[in-house]
Amino acid sequence: MPDILHKVAIKATPAQAYAALATIDGLSTWWTTDTSGSSAVGGEIGFRFGEHGFNGVKVIELEPEQRVLWEVIEGPESWLGTRIGFDLSQDGDDVAVLFKHSGWREQNEFMHTCTTKWAMFLMSLKAALETGIGAPYPNDVHITHRGY
Amino acid sequence: MPDILHKVAIKATPAQAYAALATIDGLSTWWTTDTSGSSAVGGEIGFRFGEHGFNGVKVIELEPEQRVLWEVIEGPESWLGTRIGFDLSQDGDDVAVLFKHSGWREQNEFMHTCTTKWAMFLMSLKAALETGIGAPYPNDVHITHRGY
Repeated sequence: MPDILHKVAIKATPAQAYAALATIDGLSTWWTTDTSGSSAVGGEIGFRFGEHGFNGVKVIELEPEQRVLWEVIEGPESWLGTRIGFDLSQDGDDVAVLFKHSGWREQNEFMHTCTTKWAMFLMSLKAALETGIGAPYPNDVHITHRGY
Repeated sequence: MPDILHKVAIKATPAQAYAALATIDGLSTWWTTDTSGSSAVGGEIGFRFGEHGFNGVKVIELEPEQRVLWEVIEGPESWLGTRIGFDLSQDGDDVAVLFKHSGWREQNEFMHTCTTKWAMFLMSLKAALETGIGAPYPNDVHITHRGY
């Protein structure tokens, strides 16, 4: 099944990157400011994007400073059952983030949109960690003129 | 075989987007300023990125205002034989650009990097058409601290 892959390298430590991915406060700095729930293994996290919807994930796996893995349990139909993972590794002075949104059932147009939009949010994660100012919803970078 | 997909919507006409994809001058505004060659069908286009390499493509298909398709004939090993396509369509007042870099033999780490970097260049294409100022190499947005 097709996957969305991305990589960014961030001037931060694996511990800092992990905190941005594995805590509600951290997630609020780069994906959406309206993040809530439990980020522990087995917990459920909700990500609200105003009128543009809601994504709910279940936390499947956490490996401090190394790995965060979620399964989508609520959201767009194409996302249901897909998994979103972040693998962290030291890369010189940086932390490399390998991103994988796996298990798409088809390469539909929404998958094109989501690939580009994930890049915007991963650059938001990078900016949040490097400068303290990310671009989470509702301050996200738009790739179309329809609010996303 | 895995593909890289992206979509951006641009406040421009299909003719303007096509010119940015099907002419040497247009390509110079968003991918690399150092673009040369022949952009006609059967022609070869070279894209230089200083010390970061060279990509050569052969133009496979051109459909004015609708489609540009290349095959990679020189560049990183993972890119050889892959195809890079841009499909244009009217989307309200915008032109939608569906991007597909197809035929990757494996989901290696370089594919992660290229997916994110293509998003930066497609946002550069969007900016070039909407504001007149793109971010082609050597003014490209870096996703790592190693010059790409």
